[in-house]
Amino acid sequence: NFHNEFTDLHVYEQAEIFTTLDKEQRQRVYQYLTPKELSDTFDAIEDDPEEVVKYFDEMSLKYVAELLDNMYTDNEVDLLGQLDKHKLAKYLGLIDKDKANEIKSLLHYEDKTAGAIMSTDFASIVSSQTVRSAMQVLREEAENAETIYYDYVVNNDKRLLGIVTLRNLLMSDEDALIGDIMTTPVMSVKADDDQEDVAKMIRDYNFLAMPVTNYDEQLIGVITVDDIIDVIDEESAEDYSGLAGVDTEEQTENPFKAASKRLPWLITLLFLGMSTASLVSHFEGLLSEASILAVFISLITGTAGNAGTQSLAVAVRRLAVKDDTEQSVVRLIISEVFTGLVIGVVTGIAVTLIVGIWKDNFVLGMVIGLAMMSAITVANLAGSFIPILMDKIGVDPAVASGPFISTLSDLTSVLIYFSIAQVFLKFFITS
Amino acid sequence: NFHNEFTDLHVYEQAEIFTTLDKEQRQRVYQYLTPKELSDTFDAIEDDPEEVVKYFDEMSLKYVAELLDNMYTDNEVDLLGQLDKHKLAKYLGLIDKDKANEIKSLLHYEDKTAGAIMSTDFASIVSSQTVRSAMQVLREEAENAETIYYDYVVNNDKRLLGIVTLRNLLMSDEDALIGDIMTTPVMSVKADDDQEDVAKMIRDYNFLAMPVTNYDEQLIGVITVDDIIDVIDEESAEDYSGLAGVDTEEQTENPFKAASKRLPWLITLLFLGMSTASLVSHFEGLLSEASILAVFISLITGTAGNAGTQSLAVAVRRLAVKDDTEQSVVRLIISEVFTGLVIGVVTGIAVTLIVGIWKDNFVLGMVIGLAMMSAITVANLAGSFIPILMDKIGVDPAVASGPFISTLSDLTSVLIYFSIAQVFLKFFITS
Ligand SMILES: [Mg+2]
Ligand SMILES: [Mg+2]
Ligand SMILES: [Mg+2]
Ligand SMILES: [Mg+2]
Ligand SMILES: [Mg+2]
Ligand SMILES: [Mg+2]
Ligand SMILES: [Mg+2]
Ligand SMILES: [Mg+2]
Ligand SMILES: [Mg+2]
Ligand SMILES: [Mg+2]
Ligand SMILES: [Mg+2]
Ligand SMILES: [Mg+2]
Ligand SMILES: [Mg+2]
Repeated sequence: NFHNEFTDLHVYEQAEIFTTLDKEQRQRVYQYLTPKELSDTFDAIEDDPEEVVKYFDEMSLKYVAELLDNMYTDNEVDLLGQLDKHKLAKYLGLIDKDKANEIKSLLHYEDKTAGAIMSTDFASIVSSQTVRSAMQVLREEAENAETIYYDYVVNNDKRLLGIVTLRNLLMSDEDALIGDIMTTPVMSVKADDDQEDVAKMIRDYNFLAMPVTNYDEQLIGVITVDDIIDVIDEESAEDYSGLAGVDTEEQTENPFKAASKRLPWLITLLFLGMSTASLVSHFEGLLSEASILAVFISLITGTAGNAGTQSLAVAVRRLAVKDDTEQSVVRLIISEVFTGLVIGVVTGIAVTLIVGIWKDNFVLGMVIGLAMMSAITVANLAGSFIPILMDKIGVDPAVASGPFISTLSDLTSVLIYFSIAQVFLKFFITS
Repeated sequence: NFHNEFTDLHVYEQAEIFTTLDKEQRQRVYQYLTPKELSDTFDAIEDDPEEVVKYFDEMSLKYVAELLDNMYTDNEVDLLGQLDKHKLAKYLGLIDKDKANEIKSLLHYEDKTAGAIMSTDFASIVSSQTVRSAMQVLREEAENAETIYYDYVVNNDKRLLGIVTLRNLLMSDEDALIGDIMTTPVMSVKADDDQEDVAKMIRDYNFLAMPVTNYDEQLIGVITVDDIIDVIDEESAEDYSGLAGVDTEEQTENPFKAASKRLPWLITLLFLGMSTASLVSHFEGLLSEASILAVFISLITGTAGNAGTQSLAVAVRRLAVKDDTEQSVVRLIISEVFTGLVIGVVTGIAVTLIVGIWKDNFVLGMVIGLAMMSAITVANLAGSFIPILMDKIGVDPAVASGPFISTLSDLTSVLIYFSIAQVFLKFFITS
């Protein structure tokens, strides 16, 4: 029968199926499954919470309240945060008052902080307990706690003292005191810490969970590794999207929607491109004297743009991975500029020779080579300096996109190219 | 004293410290720490295995053998894989024969497969056991197994039957049979499965570990979530690097080394850029008649390159995230081309008006606008079609970089631009 077949599935599969059902089929689900059963499915739905809460309109108020109450608090809060005040009050009125207050306080944490992704469904034990009694506590908490493998030790004041893993407990004498076997100090984060920092710690230390405390060092929540994987995915998709100047997770196949999301950035860059055009326009006299110069515009801007994009990506990653000091950031810029210089010299010489032979004009070749070398060096300076500047003023450097750096580099490259060409004009004009 | 202070640290911190010590300090570590103690540190070192094995030359052969033997097999194999045959044989000669054979077979798995990242240090239980006796097994295995939280159930033939979590065990009656409480079927992967697919499953199902079987369905290893986080990090760094056309994890501050790593790609693109230059060269007659055309080269190539980069990033991510059918892949290309058309129409009209007013020449404006629209549409076609083609022929589409697409788009844009300009030449030449 449907009930057993559905609940026998893994919750991830339940979620996958549920989100493809039509309204009528969903009605049958609400009829056959208890809100507690469906809460497990809802815990596993990874869709945009804004979409998920729409299902609530199809359920009775009581069903929704019980479903929410049986979800893990982190997921529950994600959904409740999408409701308007009126509906939110209704649901909170239907659950236990203490629990409602807890939820209200969880709703206050800012997006992308530890507080926003933590769950309050954790098991905690006290240091004066024996291993045997702690195991008993865990047995009782096992059904509701997100994890019982990492157990945080608190004092009577709820202050975080240490951690014992279930592995530790299993390996210890049943009469041993928790206070004697716990690992201390225990690493923890504050509720307003950036989720990305928590992710780094869990990744580096190979933790399965991380405790969250308030400023009185009281344990207020736990972040589990499965949610950290989602944070890592989200952050890397953000960086990838930033580099391309487009939200790659949009996933719409409607060209109008897709275009409307990409256009703002393209139009902004179009104006920067117009500045480049107006700069070239200033050199029209030069161009009409030596139309050969037009031949190499895209070669120089293209290569410099490519080099600048490389610099940008290296700098953005460096800023994301390392805790850089002011000094090392300056070293990064210097290193990138010198890398640009080396790349510029190599490609510059290559281009000088190719153009020199091709057009039988080595002065022209040298002008192109010199312009390319300078344009690349400047592009690398821009590519490394701009994300560092953004980081400095508190903007996520990941939003500095490749398209932005190449468009900016078009401007500087053209300026460099025509300035150099102007100086050497009388030497390479042969016609 | 040093011994206790060091071993009291978390293994991640031990690893961080150890890798910053100089040779003399390391010698003291080898003296004060037993190989078993240092094995925990070595399990936590995340540096390139090629670098890590260099420490072995500083230790006695016996110390190395014991250190390796106490490491988790996944990490052990990573290091052993770096040794030359001669040294490898020496170390394997010093350990238990069965273990040595196991290690040898682990060394055969190809990089980036489940087999290459799995560990054989797992606890397995049998279905005929009671919960009590299974718990006893886990107590004994706890010291050596990578995890005891996910316990895989096998039959006498080592075939994988099901899974019980330690949470399940704790919540079950001690006299219950494992066969009665285990979850079945259990998801598993094959040793030659792509590590990225394993990562997706662990992420979606929120597992802490994944069992690996051979083609006889026998359990041969376990992959733990901490290693999957590293896979996710590695794969996303690879995608990010691919998009920028540079290995962003290189992290060298030596400009010559950095340049030598970036130059191959830049030089390749330089030749593509030279083709564009030679194409423009064919239109030099046109350019000398209408030098105004040179003013808009970088605007058109730049904007088309930006749009093409967006398409590329969207397509690469779609290919990475979804299991696409042939049909949906065609839909993706069509959607990207139409998105390009919409973007092209909007930016084309904007540019027509701006150029028309600026240069007081609406025919010229229309030529630029039309060229921009066509160039963007073609750039979007290339940006979506190329990664899909690569995926089709079995190349990782993530290596198709933004710089490649913009350099290619420079070529198509210039061709489109000058062809259109040629047709309308007599209408916009006012001089
Ligand atoms: Mg539930
Ligand atoms: Mg709840
Ligand atoms: Mg949240
Ligand atoms: Mg790790
Ligand atoms: Mg959670
Ligand atoms: Mg970020
Ligand atoms: Mg060890
Ligand atoms: Mg080992
Ligand atoms: Mg390996
Ligand atoms: Mg997940
Ligand atoms: Mg491992
Ligand atoms: Mg990949
Ligand atoms: Mg460009």
